[in-house]
Amino acid sequence: MREVFQQELREVQDGLVEIAQLVAASIENATRAFNESNVTLAESVIINDVRIDELSTNLDELSIQILARQQPVARDLRIVVSALRISASLERMGDIAEHIAQLARYRFPDKVVPQSLRSTFAEMGRLDVEIAHKLAELLTTEDVQLAEQIRNEDDKIDELHVSVFDAVLGETWRGQAVDTVDATLASRYHERFADHAVSIAKKVQYLATGDWSVSEPS
Amino acid sequence: MREVFQQELREVQDGLVEIAQLVAASIENATRAFNESNVTLAESVIINDVRIDELSTNLDELSIQILARQQPVARDLRIVVSALRISASLERMGDIAEHIAQLARYRFPDKVVPQSLRSTFAEMGRLDVEIAHKLAELLTTEDVQLAEQIRNEDDKIDELHVSVFDAVLGETWRGQAVDTVDATLASRYHERFADHAVSIAKKVQYLATGDWSVSEPS
Repeated sequence: MREVFQQELREVQDGLVEIAQLVAASIENATRAFNESNVTLAESVIINDVRIDELSTNLDELSIQILARQQPVARDLRIVVSALRISASLERMGDIAEHIAQLARYRFPDKVVPQSLRSTFAEMGRLDVEIAHKLAELLTTEDVQLAEQIRNEDDKIDELHVSVFDAVLGETWRGQAVDTVDATLASRYHERFADHAVSIAKKVQYLATGDWSVSEPS
Repeated sequence: MREVFQQELREVQDGLVEIAQLVAASIENATRAFNESNVTLAESVIINDVRIDELSTNLDELSIQILARQQPVARDLRIVVSALRISASLERMGDIAEHIAQLARYRFPDKVVPQSLRSTFAEMGRLDVEIAHKLAELLTTEDVQLAEQIRNEDDKIDELHVSVFDAVLGETWRGQAVDTVDATLASRYHERFADHAVSIAKKVQYLATGDWSVSEPS
């Protein structure tokens, strides 16, 4: 029984890693679509998200079946419950990547944000992609140092998020309303994407260390 | 054992209803704070959210303990797993109410949106408050007609959300960048609040009817 359970847990873990890798591909393509106004890439993100939703639903179903069949307790139970939560956050990260891609699609052939903010969004996108890759690696290796790195990168994104508002609300801003809307939404999406990654990283961290005190969502 | 389980499930349900009522109070105060630029009300929402987070964490802990002690299967298991998910969505709705209240606080003593959009946001706020009250009632009574009503109200909010962008991107918009930012964020918050309510309503609906086909998040 125990062996079957360990095997099933590995399946769940593999499933989470697979979804995290798809999310990393999505945010990579979404930020490129955003920076380069590439509609084909934007559409690939939208299609990829259907697959992410499907895998996430399947993984939830597997987790519920494990709860029913194996009746885990203590740490084992918390691992399965955490998998359900991590899957929900990954699914949401996929949605956010899709929103970023959709911004590129709506504004095509125009670019989404004006010249003055492009390097800021390129940097936010770069950080989100890095965070997504680290998250997939963290789910594979459970190396908690990666969790720490993800938190640090999230701090950088928060700073950039504040800088976008400073720019848009500053005296030198010459953007149209459409630029202001796009900058506001895009900045919020990038920031939320990283928030979800941090929340997942915390869950992996306390599963690895057994320290539940860091478990609260930020 | 069965009796203890039923008693514990009632505790979980009562807990969800209590959180939903606090969320309803939060969105009610947040929208009033937003419409009337009332900082005291805005601050009460921020304080209320600490309590919502606390109750949500306690309820998750109770649900995990029930899984461990009672080892539920089939529908009983799905009820407990759904409670965990509903609690997460309610917690997020509380966060969003807080974000709306914070917009009022940042702009004080100015109002958050210009005159031309005030009636739209008043209507969005009214619908969100109504949805929150219906959600608390749905969690109490499991009357699935309420789930239907919540979906209809969410459709109205989506229409208003689109109308905000039409206004902000239209030729007659004379708002400053700060008005554009606020309208974009506030509209997005109101829309997401209702989305979470719909996602909870669907979960209650399939628990009540046993029809899992409506279970996917929108």
